[in-house]
Formats: sequence, C-alpha cells, structure tokens
Amino acid sequence: MSRILLLGAGRSASSLLQYLLHHAPTEGWQVTVADVNPAPVRALLLPHAAYAQAVPFAVEDNARLEELISQAEVVISMLPALFHPLVARACLRFQCHLVTASYASEEINALHEQAQAAGLVLLMECGLDPGLDHMSAMQVIDEVRAQGGELLSFKSYCGGLMAPGSEGDNPWRYKFTWNPRNVVLAGQGTAKFLEGGQPRFIPYQQLFARTELLCIPTYGEFEGYANRDSLSYRAPYGLHDIPTILRGTLRRPGYCAAWHALVLLGLTDDAVHLGNAASMTWSELVTAYLPQAADHSLPLATRTAQHLGLAPDSPEMQRLAWLGIFSDVPVGLANAKPAQLLERLLTAKWQLEPTDQDMIVMQHLFRYTLGGVLYHHTSSLVVLGDDSIHTAMAKTVGLPVGIAVRRLLQGHVSQRGVVIPTSAELYEPILHELATQYGIHFVENKQTVTQ
Amino acid sequence: MSRILLLGAGRSASSLLQYLLHHAPTEGWQVTVADVNPAPVRALLLPHAAYAQAVPFAVEDNARLEELISQAEVVISMLPALFHPLVARACLRFQCHLVTASYASEEINALHEQAQAAGLVLLMECGLDPGLDHMSAMQVIDEVRAQGGELLSFKSYCGGLMAPGSEGDNPWRYKFTWNPRNVVLAGQGTAKFLEGGQPRFIPYQQLFARTELLCIPTYGEFEGYANRDSLSYRAPYGLHDIPTILRGTLRRPGYCAAWHALVLLGLTDDAVHLGNAASMTWSELVTAYLPQAADHSLPLATRTAQHLGLAPDSPEMQRLAWLGIFSDVPVGLANAKPAQLLERLLTAKWQLEPTDQDMIVMQHLFRYTLGGVLYHHTSSLVVLGDDSIHTAMAKTVGLPVGIAVRRLLQGHVSQRGVVIPTSAELYEPILHELATQYGIHFVENKQTVTQ
Repeated sequence: MSRILLLGAGRSASSLLQYLLHHAPTEGWQVTVADVNPAPVRALLLPHAAYAQAVPFAVEDNARLEELISQAEVVISMLPALFHPLVARACLRFQCHLVTASYASEEINALHEQAQAAGLVLLMECGLDPGLDHMSAMQVIDEVRAQGGELLSFKSYCGGLMAPGSEGDNPWRYKFTWNPRNVVLAGQGTAKFLEGGQPRFIPYQQLFARTELLCIPTYGEFEGYANRDSLSYRAPYGLHDIPTILRGTLRRPGYCAAWHALVLLGLTDDAVHLGNAASMTWSELVTAYLPQAADHSLPLATRTAQHLGLAPDSPEMQRLAWLGIFSDVPVGLANAKPAQLLERLLTAKWQLEPTDQDMIVMQHLFRYTLGGVLYHHTSSLVVLGDDSIHTAMAKTVGLPVGIAVRRLLQGHVSQRGVVIPTSAELYEPILHELATQYGIHFVENKQTVTQ
Repeated sequence: MSRILLLGAGRSASSLLQYLLHHAPTEGWQVTVADVNPAPVRALLLPHAAYAQAVPFAVEDNARLEELISQAEVVISMLPALFHPLVARACLRFQCHLVTASYASEEINALHEQAQAAGLVLLMECGLDPGLDHMSAMQVIDEVRAQGGELLSFKSYCGGLMAPGSEGDNPWRYKFTWNPRNVVLAGQGTAKFLEGGQPRFIPYQQLFARTELLCIPTYGEFEGYANRDSLSYRAPYGLHDIPTILRGTLRRPGYCAAWHALVLLGLTDDAVHLGNAASMTWSELVTAYLPQAADHSLPLATRTAQHLGLAPDSPEMQRLAWLGIFSDVPVGLANAKPAQLLERLLTAKWQLEPTDQDMIVMQHLFRYTLGGVLYHHTSSLVVLGDDSIHTAMAKTVGLPVGIAVRRLLQGHVSQRGVVIPTSAELYEPILHELATQYGIHFVENKQTVTQ
C-alpha cells in the first residue's frame, strides 16, 4: 500500500483528485486530501471511503504539516508556490517524494543534492505551463537531435482562454481562468529573448504592441506577446547555442492592442496609491489621466481616442468601452493603485459563468535543418474544458501530476533530486497516457522549406 | 554648555559643520562629530579643538550610538533616512532633541505623542527639499491667509542643477549633485496632483513629455515635471480644499524630452535583469531594443530616431548620442537591470568636476484672490555653490538645520513632538538669517490679473 498526501484541494486540483481516486483501488493507494476547508472534498470522497479521506489543514500549522507528511510516501502540493520550500524541507525530513505543478525556485533547487543523497525526488514543473510545455517541446527536440538535426529556432506560446462557444459578446474573447492579479500585471518590466543570435529586449510600454500572429486549424487565429524571460529555457532544454528562442502568452486577436491602450492610459501601474475616493467613477478616473482638453464638450471616449491616437470606433476603443471605463460606475476602492482598480473591474466583466467552457492552447514553432533540408515544425495543442469543474486548466495542470505520481510509485522514475519532466522517462508515458486516455494530444505539422 | 552630536559628516554636512563651528564658541556648544571615517573631519577640527571633536562611529553599533546620544542635548542626524527611526528612539530614551533634513516617515510620526510627553522635539524636514520649500511656501501662504485671501493654486518646483558657467558642452545641462540612482528612477509609478479641483494622474511613460516651462530672471528658462505625490502637501500646509496643487522637479529645457526618449527605449526599467554580458556594447544594447529593421544598412542612431518618431538631428537625438548610447563602449555590468546600466553610463558622463559650481533653483507659483482681485505671485530662489565643498546643495540642506539647532538651544522653539518647519516661529528666523547672513533669499514677484 502507498500513501499519497494531496495538499490543497482548490479548483485546479479537481481533475487530479479524480485521477487519484480512479487509480487508488487498483494501485493500492491510500489518499489523504488536506485542505483548509475539507467539507466539500469530504462529500466528494464518500463513495471512496475505503481508500480516501479528507482532513483539515492550515498551512500555518507546521506541526500538523509534519504529522501529515510523516505518514506519506508521496506528497503532491497544489498549495501556492511560496509554500513549496517549506513542504519540500519537511519531505526531506520524513523521507517522502514531492510532486508539484510549480516552477522550481532557487530555494527548491538548493535542495537538489540533499534530495539526491536521500534517494528522493522533488518533481517540479509537472503541470501545464510549466509541465506539458517542457514535455511536448522536449519530445520534438530529442527527436531532432537523435536524427542529427540542428535547431535554429524555438518559439513556444501558451494561453488559458475561452472555448469559441463561450466567448459570447465579449469583444476581448477572454475571461479569467487564472489568477486575475497576474493577468493585470503580466509583462511588467522588460521582456528578453533571442532572435537570429541577437538578444532582443521589449520594454513593457511596447510589449502589447509587438505581437506575433499564430494560426491553429479549426480554432483560427491567436496573437502572442513575449514573456518576461525566454532565456531561462535554454539550459533545461540543452539549447545553449540556439539562435532564436522565445516564450510567449496567447490571446485572441485584438486583445493585445486594446490592452496596450490600457497600459498607455496608465491603468496597469501597481506602484502608487492614487488617494482616490471609492465613489470616484470610472469616467472621472479616466478623465484624470487625460491631458487637459482644449475642447471639453467632446465625449470622454472621443477625447481618450484622440489622446491614444486611435479612431473613436476602432476595435481598441470598442473593447475599452465594453469594460465600462467611460461609465459612471464607481471604482469601488478608496486610495487604490490603478492595477487594483482595473483588476476589480475586470473581475466583474471577465467572470467565468457556470456554463462556460474554457480552452487551453499551446503551440511550439521549431525551425531546424536535417540532412541539408530546412524544416518548419509546429506542435499544437487545444484542450477544451468538460464543464466548470473539470476545466481544461484543471485537466492539463492536474492530469500530468497524477500520471507522474503513478509512474513514480510504480518505480518507473529513476532520477533523484530536483527534477523537471524534460527526460523521456517522464515525458513519454505522460504524453502517451494523456493522448490515449484523455484525448489530450499535440498535432504535429512538419514542412520542408526551400532555402 | 550645550552638547551637540552630529551623526554623519558626508558631503552634504560641510556647510552645516562650518555653521556649528562658527557659533560654538559664542553659544557655548561642545560639538561631537561621529562618522564612520573621522580622519578627514579631525583635520578640519584641529583649529577648533577646544569645542569640537570627531569620533569614529559605525551605524550598526547600537551600544556606541546609545553612548554617544546619552551625552548629547541635541542630535543632528545626516545619516541616510532609513536610520532615523533608530536614532529617534534612542533620543527619546536619553532625553535628547533630534534635528534632520529628511522626510518624517510613518515610523517617525508614530513617535509624536511619546516625544511630546517627554518635552522633546523631533524636528524633521528642515533642509532644502524638504525644508526650505515648506518655510518659504508657508511664509506666503500665512501672509495671504492673514490678509483674508483665498488660495486657488499652489505649484512648487525645485531642482539641483549646475551653475550656467559649469554646464560646459553637456547638452543635458545636468550633472549629479544628488543620489544618481534616485535620478534614474525618478517618477516611476503614477504622478498625482490636483488641477482646478480635479484629480490629475500622469503615468510614468508620459511624465517627461508633460512638462511646464518656468522662467527665472537672470537664469532663464527651466522645465518642471510633476513629482509622484503632490497631494500629501495639502495637510501640512493646511490647504485641504485648494483646487490646484502640484509639486515638481526642475531641469533645463530639453532634458525632459530626451529623458522621455530613454524611458520609451526602455532603459530606465529597474525590474528585470537582462542576462547580458559585461562586454555587450551600448550599440548592441540599443539595437536589442529596436524592432527588427527593414533596412539594416541605416546607422543605429537613425533607426533609433525612426523608432522614437524623432528627427535624426533633433535635440533629443543629440543628447542621446552625447551620452554614448550608440557607441561601442561596453555596458560594463553583466546580467544587469537596464536602470543599472544607465546609471553607470550617466555617472561617468554627469560627474561633477572639482571646479564645477552647482545651483539650487526653487520656484513657488501661487494664485489667490484678495479683496476681489486675482493675484499671481511667484517666489523664486537661486543659490550657487561656493566651491566643490560648500556646494549650493550643502548650503541649502545644512544651513537651515544649523540655524534650527541654534534656535532650539536658545529656547526659541516652543513646539514639541514630531515637528516640521511650517510654523512662523521656525521659518521666520531661519529665512531671515539665510537672507541676511548668507544671501540665500527668495525673490517675490506679485502681479494682479484682470479677471
């Protein structure tokens, strides 16, 4: 019998939990789900009482954390990433493996040798992004390498979006399926990547104006903007000398140009409290950002369009108007930072309805030479949510974690220490099971290019 | 006999120290100067050995700090502002007054009642900015109020610049007389002020493009950009309902438009490490920020001008070229943030020479009604440095502190607790002594305006 401890049973853990419960009887697992609010999980586990239980757990209670971990063989942490070092150190003390869907931080990486010496795995970055991105990219990269090819370019985009049928009349074609604050603050700083062997930098105030258009058959067009740091992907992928590497985020066309307008207006700043009243209206807020107008009689939207250099009926202005930033709705928070006010507005406008279906889109674009031939190769993934519980986000984050745990407990993972799923022993079975059991598979498209 | 402890004898303390030594014999002061490096001060104090000594002191040594403060009646702290709460709490323990030229932080303000109960003064913001700005503005504001006038608008600008004869061929007409890092990061976030009763916000990426032109007779034109927070000046000045209030920073005309170009390029970002080599050249860095050019044969400066929408021979481009950002000089720091690289470049280009003379400029612009008449009133101050030791910065920061200490020890300061110099009992004698003894005086210009 193997004992699995799942820390945190929030939204993104639904498909993972279903996976664990499905396999527990045949695999001989005892599953303990520890959450600050165990009641809803308890109800869910009733038919599985023989091999699953839910217990209360607050992350501040370190004694309780150690007690739970001391009884486990594998810990899966779906807690916020900042708690992972704490959990990982307890795993090392109690001889326990750890699996998460979060980035391996410097604090986690510092535990590598200690985990190796103890014969334990701290398997990080095993969800969607990071996770499936590593696995699917490395499958192609390893294959090209095995054939003696040379990679010239690797671009990779991912986005958590809405299924086409759930976009409704929302011109942004976007709703929150992820932490709203992170979406509002996305890209602040300088984006860095490589293009043709040269470093490329994009400052925040131009980031959403310099996008790339992508196409995925059946699902149409998407636009990608560069993530802050694309360079850090070279080392784990063994692409130290690749001339072009870019990681980016996907949105539906038009989103980025309209978001760029919000950036230019100043509404994404997270540094300064405005000293505003909660009763200040959105139109008063936007008015405060415009230079003093020569002609006060023009409508606010028209003056905003002039200030931004946009046509009053442009797609950007339509998206801004749809959000209600020219309305008399109060901003609702006193002495707030602009980004807090924008997050509050968007949380109301971009809320997921119970009937909404989300969609995960990932696309890798490779260019490589093989036997004197130049290839363009795209790997594309589209995953639709089943319902508002088993969302595409929950499936793509949770199922790779679940499969990895099964492989680990079956003794099929030979690596020890801090590990991310860039090796075939991990990515092959995970990608195979996702494709054959869950219909989560990448569509590969390879073209030769006349040089 | 009164014992004065001066903590920190750096550059900005030169004129203060001279003031203390000048008055010590007649006032019966014993002056102790405590600095991490007392040797240069010791040499300076040799002729004053009867009433002044320099002692070694490291700010981390709390026992030593308490020992020094326990022997003092008034402590003057010229240490970095973050140490002031530590010093202030020690002052309260040992029944000692404190005078500084730094902003009263929340931590300092929290000591107000305790200081009042102990009959002590924690006199903050008694230098130039903050300091002379409060004093000179309140002198006008109190006079208008006493006559029954109503203030409609208060704008106030200050800048630490170069005397006209020391600008040389530097087209920016600026050198560092203050912390370079703060100059590079100036204005990041959102500037907020009031105009005609309405809140006004300027996002960072437009701040240096929205300036106001000011004129000071004999010294010509200056341009001012808004500081981050102008609203916080309402409460201490008693201007709770004033329709227009703005605080800003002065530069010579053309500086802001060229700085705006650096902001747009992305070179002031302080959030992201670029992963660059130290040997990367400035031209490679700027190239990395430009979108891929259609025509690679054009010179970098021309492509940069196109990207920024500027003429290749515009004043902005001339200033950028003068800095050397299109040169093959290495950036010199590996994996640096853009703001760090820019600071390093500017520190070399904007370095004060021993023969350079600095200049402090301050201008208040008031509008008020009095007896049915609308007045425009400007108060302007220009102070030139004597030499590279007694700079305008050192004089305007240090002398108000010295005068305040003298008034305090003479028993002429009645206020207790955390105090800033907004009351006549402080500003009148300080402004009077500065004007009559040091030629540091504001020029007042009052005009009536036909409504």
